[in-house]
Amino acid sequence: MESMPLVSRAHKPEDTVVQVGQVKIGGTQPVLIAGPCSVEDGQQIMEIAAQIKDCAHILRGGAFKPRTSPYSFQGLGEEGLRLLAEARRRFGLPVVTEVLSEEEVELVAAYADLIQIGARNMQNYALLKKVGAQGKPVLLKRGFAATIEELLLSAEYILASGNGQVVLCERGIRTFGSATRFTLDLGAVPLLRELTHLPVIVDPSHAAGRWNLVGPLAKAALAAGAQGVMVEVHSRPQEALSDGPQALKPERFKSLAAQLTALAQFLQVTGGKADG
Amino acid sequence: MESMPLVSRAHKPEDTVVQVGQVKIGGTQPVLIAGPCSVEDGQQIMEIAAQIKDCAHILRGGAFKPRTSPYSFQGLGEEGLRLLAEARRRFGLPVVTEVLSEEEVELVAAYADLIQIGARNMQNYALLKKVGAQGKPVLLKRGFAATIEELLLSAEYILASGNGQVVLCERGIRTFGSATRFTLDLGAVPLLRELTHLPVIVDPSHAAGRWNLVGPLAKAALAAGAQGVMVEVHSRPQEALSDGPQALKPERFKSLAAQLTALAQFLQVTGGKADG
Amino acid sequence: MESMPLVSRAHKPEDTVVQVGQVKIGGTQPVLIAGPCSVEDGQQIMEIAAQIKDCAHILRGGAFKPRTSPYSFQGLGEEGLRLLAEARRRFGLPVVTEVLSEEEVELVAAYADLIQIGARNMQNYALLKKVGAQGKPVLLKRGFAATIEELLLSAEYILASGNGQVVLCERGIRTFGSATRFTLDLGAVPLLRELTHLPVIVDPSHAAGRWNLVGPLAKAALAAGAQGVMVEVHSRPQEALSDGPQALKPERFKSLAAQLTALAQFLQVTGGKADG
Amino acid sequence: MESMPLVSRAHKPEDTVVQVGQVKIGGTQPVLIAGPCSVEDGQQIMEIAAQIKDCAHILRGGAFKPRTSPYSFQGLGEEGLRLLAEARRRFGLPVVTEVLSEEEVELVAAYADLIQIGARNMQNYALLKKVGAQGKPVLLKRGFAATIEELLLSAEYILASGNGQVVLCERGIRTFGSATRFTLDLGAVPLLRELTHLPVIVDPSHAAGRWNLVGPLAKAALAAGAQGVMVEVHSRPQEALSDGPQALKPERFKSLAAQLTALAQFLQVTGGKADG
Repeated sequence: MESMPLVSRAHKPEDTVVQVGQVKIGGTQPVLIAGPCSVEDGQQIMEIAAQIKDCAHILRGGAFKPRTSPYSFQGLGEEGLRLLAEARRRFGLPVVTEVLSEEEVELVAAYADLIQIGARNMQNYALLKKVGAQGKPVLLKRGFAATIEELLLSAEYILASGNGQVVLCERGIRTFGSATRFTLDLGAVPLLRELTHLPVIVDPSHAAGRWNLVGPLAKAALAAGAQGVMVEVHSRPQEALSDGPQALKPERFKSLAAQLTALAQFLQVTGGKADG
Repeated sequence: MESMPLVSRAHKPEDTVVQVGQVKIGGTQPVLIAGPCSVEDGQQIMEIAAQIKDCAHILRGGAFKPRTSPYSFQGLGEEGLRLLAEARRRFGLPVVTEVLSEEEVELVAAYADLIQIGARNMQNYALLKKVGAQGKPVLLKRGFAATIEELLLSAEYILASGNGQVVLCERGIRTFGSATRFTLDLGAVPLLRELTHLPVIVDPSHAAGRWNLVGPLAKAALAAGAQGVMVEVHSRPQEALSDGPQALKPERFKSLAAQLTALAQFLQVTGGKADG
Repeated sequence: MESMPLVSRAHKPEDTVVQVGQVKIGGTQPVLIAGPCSVEDGQQIMEIAAQIKDCAHILRGGAFKPRTSPYSFQGLGEEGLRLLAEARRRFGLPVVTEVLSEEEVELVAAYADLIQIGARNMQNYALLKKVGAQGKPVLLKRGFAATIEELLLSAEYILASGNGQVVLCERGIRTFGSATRFTLDLGAVPLLRELTHLPVIVDPSHAAGRWNLVGPLAKAALAAGAQGVMVEVHSRPQEALSDGPQALKPERFKSLAAQLTALAQFLQVTGGKADG
Repeated sequence: MESMPLVSRAHKPEDTVVQVGQVKIGGTQPVLIAGPCSVEDGQQIMEIAAQIKDCAHILRGGAFKPRTSPYSFQGLGEEGLRLLAEARRRFGLPVVTEVLSEEEVELVAAYADLIQIGARNMQNYALLKKVGAQGKPVLLKRGFAATIEELLLSAEYILASGNGQVVLCERGIRTFGSATRFTLDLGAVPLLRELTHLPVIVDPSHAAGRWNLVGPLAKAALAAGAQGVMVEVHSRPQEALSDGPQALKPERFKSLAAQLTALAQFLQVTGGKADG
């Protein structure tokens, strides 16, 4: 591996805990991040936030959306950010949202508690440097064809730019398989935990692409040692403007959250997140 | 998907339970299969079997080995089968071992309780028909570039040849990633559970290629809904004739087996192997 | 790379020429192999053979077919072999056909001039040893997830079993891409030419999966240094029992064959099959 | 496929010709782009430009380099752009160079004749919109895990932003194979030629990762229908600050350029770039 002094566990043996509002990622409790793929309008985001506020720790929702086609819904932009802030005020959950453009880093940082760099931008080095030069914590998603080493080196860009508050997120890689949207690489979780002190979470929703696989994969993620999961939740998945098929309905998410919380406690008691 | 009347859950809603000696695969308890990659000599296999007999349900060990190079150790052949039978007699564990050749199906069936078709032979249709025409249950490993549909259709070959006792095994697929030996595709587990009534187990050892990732992936497999795991165990991994780096030492396996058993009980109580 | 003394160019610097009937593979002229995916009946194979006899060097046609589903057409078996032999007698072309089973090696060898090991059986070591122990030349297709090293080691199995008459065939690998059936890996061609003395040919039909890409890829194969191409041809592709969409009609193949022959001459004159 | 009205050949049947200085990409002659991976200093770029000026049409050289590690050489920045402009003035070749940041688009556009979007930024939509909103032509490289559809939709972003002068570049995809750096997907060439009116070129250097495979793959690219190739050339590859192993020495490039020019003429005469 190439030199990565700032992210390497060899250089900092103890786990880094990233503080997002009142929530700690990388501490003793796994963090549950939930919410819709996109913020679509005020009613949608408030309704979802209201339903998940007691079982999720952080609210997710896209305001700037990276869409494959220029003709797909591109997100509400700053209006989406304002709605997320309003949801935070009303329901007490810190918010995570994605930034797509160097020119919008300041804007997004003004609203978000945790700034997401999406999979497609994992090697957008100009953007990595920008989010590294501001003060909000960063959620860095693994590119869908990025190696573990490349993910760590992209995190190193952020740390080298001055920001040590970085959370890594495995979200599935592109393989020959088409039965799921991506192939969730859970071997990456214990491997990353070994190589870096940064917290590691998992997004089972994008990997699965189908809501009914999200629960089993979320549990598997915790069992593999992940320190949190990020799950897409939508009140009316069939009407979602993006990624509806992979969204859980709120009541399903509540049930899953209870199972995940119990599983995390069990795993902590029986020890051995990462030992063989 | 192509038509697969015999393996499809649509045609047989209830889970199939495969009986291997006194052990049931696909029942209420997850099955732990353990042992060395290869049977190397009598002392080795007896020593390992003695150490795992109280925490594993089935003993694994290769007598005929599919090796990439013709100059690598090819296994002990029939002598290896005899040693497995001797270990079964002494320690009370049924045995699983791989068959490589149509001409050796009868021979392997005479000794083994469960006959393995390895990943490289998943689409060796002549061999599938042969094992389908004999009476011992079959462990069919997914080819490392096989789709879910192809795996199910290979199982369909065995059932269509007359043998309904088939266990499927996810063992990692080949992707661009090289940090692990293969990429374990745990999304395949709930998907297979949905599509077929056949039991589904996971081999985390070949996927990881490194012993210290085996534990986290084995737990993740159960959390994803797998009905068993197959783990490589060796008393002296550094001296193993094949796949030493991915083998657990017996004492580590014992600790893992205890954790897996507790995890399985927890998952059963909290419900939801496969629901979201 | 692992040791592969028999196939390595380091151990035998000069090109091996494989003799198939009156045809030399690996000599100064590129070899054109053409014919249907499957032998379907006498009329079909005679009609195709009649149309390509003046522009192809070897006739291909499957008698034993490796089909993903047990319910798909499995080939005519020995009747297919007899029809190939009849086509050879009538049109003067040597024939290549696939063997699927160890137990049919002798049978196939009794009819074929060149015995094909298909992609799915590239690591069926029992079959490799069998074809290595008989005297007919062997066409070894690369597995769709096999590395270059694994392909060469599978060839080494055949040579180590006593048969030095082996032709390698690149036919596309499985990747995330789905716009073509497989991804033709033409970088493998100059690489194999560097590493081994065995002849290297390319099958653009299976890689493309669409007839209109076959021509450009066949030319690209020769330009990359391939010593032949194998192309699927069918008189009525829309009625073919297998792989119709990728088959060229005979008149298109004739036109392509003329272009390939001219291209090969041009490349030979301007030199530099493999130099930079 | 998703709707892509601007790039689709269905909507504009005739080939688009992109004008870069005095050079036409997509016209009757294939375009040869050559030069070092990075502009390292004045002597280096002038020396290389002097040697290739008579056989290449466009000079390439990176001023802003997308490097996996933040500690690797990041390019000379604006000084590199000035040196490229100086080389253009002295040797009469238009220049292509990569832009990494939205904030540097104007700067790069002030110097470059053709602005490159690299593989890692193919889905950096903010950057695509920026280069779409300025007037210089754009070279869009395929992401190493991007589908054909995604490549075309990224081009659609540029056209939809107002810039119709886009050249597409296949440069290898990431697969399980590690014998070459990437797997060059030449099937993409005739497929893209069918789907879009935009010109299509190939970069064999990054795909191969080894200089001795560049020649065969460059020829194969033209034979597959590519309208140009982009090749890395360095006077002292062993001293290159980036990608030395895949760079051709100038004299080797001269020889290759002569072969490619002759091949292109041959292919034009014998017809059939894309017919079967």
